[in-house]
Order: sequence, then structure tokens, then C-alpha cells
Amino acid sequence: METSELLARAVAVLNANHGASMATIAQQIGISRATLNRRFASREDLLRQLGERASDRWERSLEIADADAAGASGDPARIERALHTLLREYVAEADEYGFALTDVFLEQVPELAGRSEELTRRETALLAAGQQAGLLRTDVPARWLSWSIFGQLVAARDAVRFGDLGRRGLENLVTTTLLEGIRRR
Amino acid sequence: METSELLARAVAVLNANHGASMATIAQQIGISRATLNRRFASREDLLRQLGERASDRWERSLEIADADAAGASGDPARIERALHTLLREYVAEADEYGFALTDVFLEQVPELAGRSEELTRRETALLAAGQQAGLLRTDVPARWLSWSIFGQLVAARDAVRFGDLGRRGLENLVTTTLLEGIRRR
Repeated sequence: METSELLARAVAVLNANHGASMATIAQQIGISRATLNRRFASREDLLRQLGERASDRWERSLEIADADAAGASGDPARIERALHTLLREYVAEADEYGFALTDVFLEQVPELAGRSEELTRRETALLAAGQQAGLLRTDVPARWLSWSIFGQLVAARDAVRFGDLGRRGLENLVTTTLLEGIRRR
Repeated sequence: METSELLARAVAVLNANHGASMATIAQQIGISRATLNRRFASREDLLRQLGERASDRWERSLEIADADAAGASGDPARIERALHTLLREYVAEADEYGFALTDVFLEQVPELAGRSEELTRRETALLAAGQQAGLLRTDVPARWLSWSIFGQLVAARDAVRFGDLGRRGLENLVTTTLLEGIRRR
């Protein structure tokens, strides 16, 4: 099994059971403990690699959305496209994104915290550009908009994880709730 | 120190550092490890008591909001009051609420899961009543509304925890984002 496939399966196991041991992870992936240990020196090493993978995905989402250039352009149509693309990518990656950001261990790995700060800065710059372009409300801080998106992604991940929602239609639920709120108009 | 005070301080330590050991918790509370161990047989015992305390607070929030009776009344004004009170109480308790719901261990204590299900059912009944009374949008499931609230509370808790927001104005940020969304009108 390739490392990327192993990591994907390990995320699935850990999403269902955050405290899963290396033995449990190996068993649920369907490989021997020895094989898992040959790939990852320790549980910490596995978690660090998962954190790096999640950061890679997050960065890729910002790239796919053309976040930096769109934000710098000041062009409302371009910024709006970037925001929608970013949300779509985030929902697709909610498992990893949510896992990485809420996991106990990863928050405490300094190099990951630094990367997370930089990615947050880029995301927040796009959100601030969305405010300046008249797309997003300006009566709340751009940094809170970023937290709100994070919160809805955690909600989406856990709703799927607890079996309350399927993946179908999830992007629409997250996007519409986030953009329009839950009040009836 | 009374047990309730001890538990409150332990939540604060664990919110800052989810993986804190009993030794770390004792040290940061400012008591000896022996004293902590006299109160709680094990870390699992402490976490279980924290989970029960969080469930008590959650239940109290529903009681203060008069959620069951308001939902059953079908009276829009009464339901709206209940919804606003509930959100206010939830934001005030976001530390505990978020901690209890995202902590690894607590999800795996069967008796807490059962209580959490029952409290979720009561909350969702009020949200469904809000939909029927024309207050909340009906194009998303009531269960998703409940998850959205949870997501915004996790966002609020973590925004405070990471030092991005103060507690002042937090209730307004959470409520307005949740109800009205982040799009500019």
C-alpha cells in the first residue's frame, strides 16, 4: 500500500475514533502492526505526517481557488469565484481539515502551527478582500469569518461522522447556512 | 477547594491543553497530585465527571430557555424568545459545551452518549418548532440547524482559546453569523 493510501485510511480510522492506538489503526486498515511500524516510527510520527498532509490539502485548496491573486485583484467577480471554489474544496476535504485542526496532538507540533498560521493569513486576506469588494458583511472581523467557516466544516464533518447526514448535498448545506444564515426570510 | 471549583479549573486547563496529564492538571490548578487523586480515582474518572457536568449545563440551558414548553406551544414569539435565550446560554457555556462534545474520551462513554442524544433530541424539537413557526429556514433539516449551532460554538470557543477574539461581543458575533450568515446584503 502506498504511503498516501495508508495515510488516507488512517485518517478515516482516527476520525471515527480519535484515540485509536497504532494496533487499532493497523487492524482497521487491514495491515499488520509490524507493517504500520515500518512506515511510521511512532504514533506521533503518523500524526505529524497526517498534519502535514492536511496542511498540504489546505494549501492546495487555496491554490485551486486562486485565493492570493483573486484577493489582490480587488475584482468582485473574481473574488466571488475564489470564495465559492474555496468553500467547495474545503467541504470536500472536511474530514482532513477538521481532523487536523481539532486534533489534540497536531496543535502542539510547532512546525504545523507555523504553517497553519500562514495558511490562515492567506485565507483571511481573501475574506477581507471579499468584505472590501462588498460581497461579505463588514460588521464582523475577517478573522471571525474564517473561524465561522471552520466551525461549519467541523459541524459538517461530525454530522457525517455521527451518521446524521450523508455526503450528498453537504456542500450546499454548508455553503447556504454559512452565507445566508439559518433565519427564515 | 470544592469539587465544582476543581472541575471548573480542570476544564480551563484541558481547554488550553487537551492532552494534559493528571500531574499537569494538578500543577496548573495549584494543588498537589495527591490531592487531585483523592478527588478523582483516575483521569478517566475526572473526564467522566467533566462530561456529566457539561451535560448538566447543557440541560440547564434548555431549562432556562423553556425549550420544551416553548416548542410545544407553537407560539412564534415564545419560540423566538426560547431560541435567543438558548443561544445566549450556549455561548456563555461554550468552553464546556465545546470541550465535552469534541473531546476524544467523552464520546466513548456510553452513558454520556445516551444523555447527549436525549438533549440533542430536545434541542432539535425546539429548532423544528422554530421552522414550523416561520422563524427558521425550512429548506435544511432541523438536525443540520443543530449541527450549525454546534459548529459556531466550537468556532467561538477556539477563537477565544487561540486569542483571536475576546469574550466581549462573542454572543453577538455567534448569533448574528448564525442567523444572518456572512454574505453582505
